[in-house]
Amino acid sequence: MGTIPSPRILLGPGPSSVTPRVLEALGRAPIGYLDPELFTLLDGLRANLRTLFGTQNPFTIPLTGTGMAGMEACLVNLIEAGDTVVIGVNGFFGGRLVEIAKRVGAEVVRVEGEWGRIIEPEAFAKALKGLGKVKLVATVHAETSTGVRTPLEEIAKLAHEHDALFVADMVTSLGGLPVDVDRAGVDAAYSGTQKCVGAPPGLSPITASARAWEVVQNRKTPVPNWYLDWKLLQGYYDGAHVYHHTVPVNMFFALSEALTEIMEEGLEARFARHRAVSERLMLGLTELGIRPFSQEGYRLPMLNAIHIPESVTDEVAVRKRLLMEFGLEIGGGLGDLKGKIWRIGTMGASATDRNVLLVLAALRAVL
Amino acid sequence: MGTIPSPRILLGPGPSSVTPRVLEALGRAPIGYLDPELFTLLDGLRANLRTLFGTQNPFTIPLTGTGMAGMEACLVNLIEAGDTVVIGVNGFFGGRLVEIAKRVGAEVVRVEGEWGRIIEPEAFAKALKGLGKVKLVATVHAETSTGVRTPLEEIAKLAHEHDALFVADMVTSLGGLPVDVDRAGVDAAYSGTQKCVGAPPGLSPITASARAWEVVQNRKTPVPNWYLDWKLLQGYYDGAHVYHHTVPVNMFFALSEALTEIMEEGLEARFARHRAVSERLMLGLTELGIRPFSQEGYRLPMLNAIHIPESVTDEVAVRKRLLMEFGLEIGGGLGDLKGKIWRIGTMGASATDRNVLLVLAALRAVL
Repeated sequence: MGTIPSPRILLGPGPSSVTPRVLEALGRAPIGYLDPELFTLLDGLRANLRTLFGTQNPFTIPLTGTGMAGMEACLVNLIEAGDTVVIGVNGFFGGRLVEIAKRVGAEVVRVEGEWGRIIEPEAFAKALKGLGKVKLVATVHAETSTGVRTPLEEIAKLAHEHDALFVADMVTSLGGLPVDVDRAGVDAAYSGTQKCVGAPPGLSPITASARAWEVVQNRKTPVPNWYLDWKLLQGYYDGAHVYHHTVPVNMFFALSEALTEIMEEGLEARFARHRAVSERLMLGLTELGIRPFSQEGYRLPMLNAIHIPESVTDEVAVRKRLLMEFGLEIGGGLGDLKGKIWRIGTMGASATDRNVLLVLAALRAVL
Repeated sequence: MGTIPSPRILLGPGPSSVTPRVLEALGRAPIGYLDPELFTLLDGLRANLRTLFGTQNPFTIPLTGTGMAGMEACLVNLIEAGDTVVIGVNGFFGGRLVEIAKRVGAEVVRVEGEWGRIIEPEAFAKALKGLGKVKLVATVHAETSTGVRTPLEEIAKLAHEHDALFVADMVTSLGGLPVDVDRAGVDAAYSGTQKCVGAPPGLSPITASARAWEVVQNRKTPVPNWYLDWKLLQGYYDGAHVYHHTVPVNMFFALSEALTEIMEEGLEARFARHRAVSERLMLGLTELGIRPFSQEGYRLPMLNAIHIPESVTDEVAVRKRLLMEFGLEIGGGLGDLKGKIWRIGTMGASATDRNVLLVLAALRAVL
């Protein structure tokens, strides 16, 4: 037999823990990528994804790849070399948007924001003011690296006033707080399955509006990334089901089950659970003398970023003890925040009171 | 509960059936992408992949994506816009290599071969003769669309004599017949997990030689495809384990178990099983008056391409009956071979005498 992984309680930035029911679905015997039963399953899965995204977009699919593939897919399908794009950067993943947009050959205008705070819409307005044609404006809804939720509506409105598309990273928000794609005016969004959606890592739910598709249809050059080409993917998912790649059916089984669980719990109840668990955790951490890192009023309920206590001299060793002695995973800082903050994820099946009690007790024991 | 898929016996071009043991591993509770236990598991997994590929290449990893992502990864990391590449096309997947190479901006020289036959090394020699600098030569080892195995050694030699890299598609061959990457002189190869390797679809084992890495290190431009960038992936897999994307840990559990199964069976025994099952199947099909499609002497043991009997007026209906009445999936033709051939896969856990008896009996009943 192969190595059997130790039981872990996943309270990092993802993956989060998965229910036995979703794992059971994951482990079902595979069926073919053209099996009629697969498309029946996908119909339900995609309908539930639309509900979760808050959208009517027909093109809403579970992209084969993780959230980062979703990010790349949105950018490479909508941008062509030479296009000007405006990107909000108030954390690590904003930086990733910039990096990928540059690789497509875009002229990137960065809207900088302090890590740990939101970017005010005025900053986007100021950046857009002097610019000519802008292809898209992009920002991160829930910055996993800082624990901050940036409101999207105002930024989307500014983008549209400038005749640009608006793209949002919803990797960490989807399934844990309302994302309201259509109401907020988001033209393309991507997420991951391994955070608040409650499935294992490996898929990236994405959605794109009619406005986004108009841009895709009017491209002058082919999408450089064949594997992530939306037109080819649409050919498989809709209509004639033309072979593109052998889709990961087992991951679809798991995602389908996770979405069914979400609908049974109810969106409002699920969002309330994430909020309540996060509040209890932050209260307990405050009692331990640990301060929140993220801007008040905009703290994520699923990713709790905190200052590492000053008494800690070796933060890696502390996290290692939590993992080895208590089977608890929490996350360190990314990029500039490495060694400065911890990130405690309370996402999906990991968002329980029991886990809050456990991580508080373990921190008390270790610190 | 979500939709539970019907039990299928997968005798198409992939995915193939998966053993309960591999499915059990797939459904284990996930662990984090930086968990020390994950890297221990990956060490064993990658060592077994090297054995299976027949290589010492340190850079041998389970790429996050299916075989088509592996194809794209090999091309986009090794080619830069303007490079000349020589690609053998004797089937659908040779055509895919051309399509993806063109999207990277390569000048593609096609070496055409009849679908259903190998491409003789002389054809590559002739194509290379008039050319100046050639970046790489690529061809498909086991053409899933035609059931033909093209010997690689001579083509690799020609490529190297021309100071070009040699890339081979091993999506269908890996795990079912010897691929001998190092001995054959293959500089980069990619495969999939869902055919002869015996795991579900979702990962692409890839391997790259020191010569290939020299080309990667000397690139003048960044890889346009951020998600498939080997240097970034190497940063995660080796040394410092720098975050790139949240790897699909459950798929790693399954692949690890599938590779352990392969090593327990033994490579020679596994290859012999694939040959014996295919021979029995082709014998039985001949008795039914069904003729093989692929060139004799080069027929794949895991993908049996056959002419659709002339008595069949609606081949789609026949395959549908096999699926609905017998739970048996076989494949139709791809591209130009649509409606002309069937493809019966006998790969991995699907390669059993029992499945041969069953598909022959079902065909007898349906035809």
